[in-house]
Amino acid sequence: MSHGRQFTLYSHAGGPNAWKPAMLLSELGLTYETIYLDIKKGEHKTPGLAKYNPNGRLPVLIDHANNGFTIWESNAILLYLVGKYDKQNKFSVAEENDKYSMIQWLFFQASGQGPYFGQFSWFTNHHEENIPSAIERYTKEVNRIWAVLESVLSKQEWLVGNKYTIADLSFITWNNGVIAMLRTADPSYDFGKQFPAVAAWRERMNLRPAVSKVRAIRDAVVSAGSTPGVRTLD
Amino acid sequence: MSHGRQFTLYSHAGGPNAWKPAMLLSELGLTYETIYLDIKKGEHKTPGLAKYNPNGRLPVLIDHANNGFTIWESNAILLYLVGKYDKQNKFSVAEENDKYSMIQWLFFQASGQGPYFGQFSWFTNHHEENIPSAIERYTKEVNRIWAVLESVLSKQEWLVGNKYTIADLSFITWNNGVIAMLRTADPSYDFGKQFPAVAAWRERMNLRPAVSKVRAIRDAVVSAGSTPGVRTLD
Repeated sequence: MSHGRQFTLYSHAGGPNAWKPAMLLSELGLTYETIYLDIKKGEHKTPGLAKYNPNGRLPVLIDHANNGFTIWESNAILLYLVGKYDKQNKFSVAEENDKYSMIQWLFFQASGQGPYFGQFSWFTNHHEENIPSAIERYTKEVNRIWAVLESVLSKQEWLVGNKYTIADLSFITWNNGVIAMLRTADPSYDFGKQFPAVAAWRERMNLRPAVSKVRAIRDAVVSAGSTPGVRTLD
Repeated sequence: MSHGRQFTLYSHAGGPNAWKPAMLLSELGLTYETIYLDIKKGEHKTPGLAKYNPNGRLPVLIDHANNGFTIWESNAILLYLVGKYDKQNKFSVAEENDKYSMIQWLFFQASGQGPYFGQFSWFTNHHEENIPSAIERYTKEVNRIWAVLESVLSKQEWLVGNKYTIADLSFITWNNGVIAMLRTADPSYDFGKQFPAVAAWRERMNLRPAVSKVRAIRDAVVSAGSTPGVRTLD
């Protein structure tokens, strides 16, 4: 650690997940250095990353103020950061039952939104052949997930505890990514008409200074090319 | 709650996820009544279940000793149960960093093993058409997940804290389910040859009395038909 910041965040600029801890670090005012790995060059499969994460995926966070403790899985990172560095519960909840509800929503994001949005993106953009029945399957699942969120957010502003928490934050990046994809495919696509409460929730979060700042960094990094700021792992 | 037990567990007999809290409840010696819903009849989409879980999925756990607190997402349920009822850390870890590592592995199960094993099962058993490239994709991912686990478990017996915890337990049911599928498709399939450390870990867990007991209940329930013990929701 020569950069003098508290955390090192290993990131993949094009994916949605590494931006989640970046947003929370920004919300908490914690200092971090980002190292972007180039997936296309297979940098995430190097022994360098496997040393930190046997799953070879990103993000990975290293906390230099905690003896180099290393943690991966974006939602586990969010829970780690609020558990250690959000003692005033600015972005988390204090009440015990609420805490488990917050965890429940994080698992819904990780096992529901993430995988289905990810497979939708895969079969739409990356799969070796065009498979309409697979695209149809994941389009339905994406809309089902949004309908679940709409059913809750049409009755309350936030998922848990009547406040913005990491449970809400965890949904930002995949929502933005897939809505952008749908708008590219069909410029007349009107997300807010179908899911007004989810759209308003998304807008409230995107407008937060910390979120907005990280989104601007993301846009700059992505538009600068696929491997900006790449550094070696070791 | 007329059954007099501490918990009500809404379950789907054929799926892997509701058996995870059943195994932990059994490990902890807690009393619970299971209500099996019939997915084929759409019972999970009734307003009765939506009242408890807007995602309409199973399991859902109700804790009558905590004023009817309701929680869904199987791994969130595991964390709730150890947080509230495993104060001696028999199936969890006490040290703070270990606690976050345990959570990290639970998210890897929820976002890695669960979705990929689930999509493998979907395209192999349920999809409307046979799509070899999709089956190939998910076969690769299933084996990639096992290779990640092998890389860790070939060096240590358990995922975190040198002991059996809910992180390990969370992998039992999907491992058993997909290995059974592969053996049905090819009776000569030798899981232990490919992934010896994962196989030994799996065997250690399957032989535990609490796990074994719940697996026997599962086998009896599944072989009795698709809707055994179904009760109405309200």
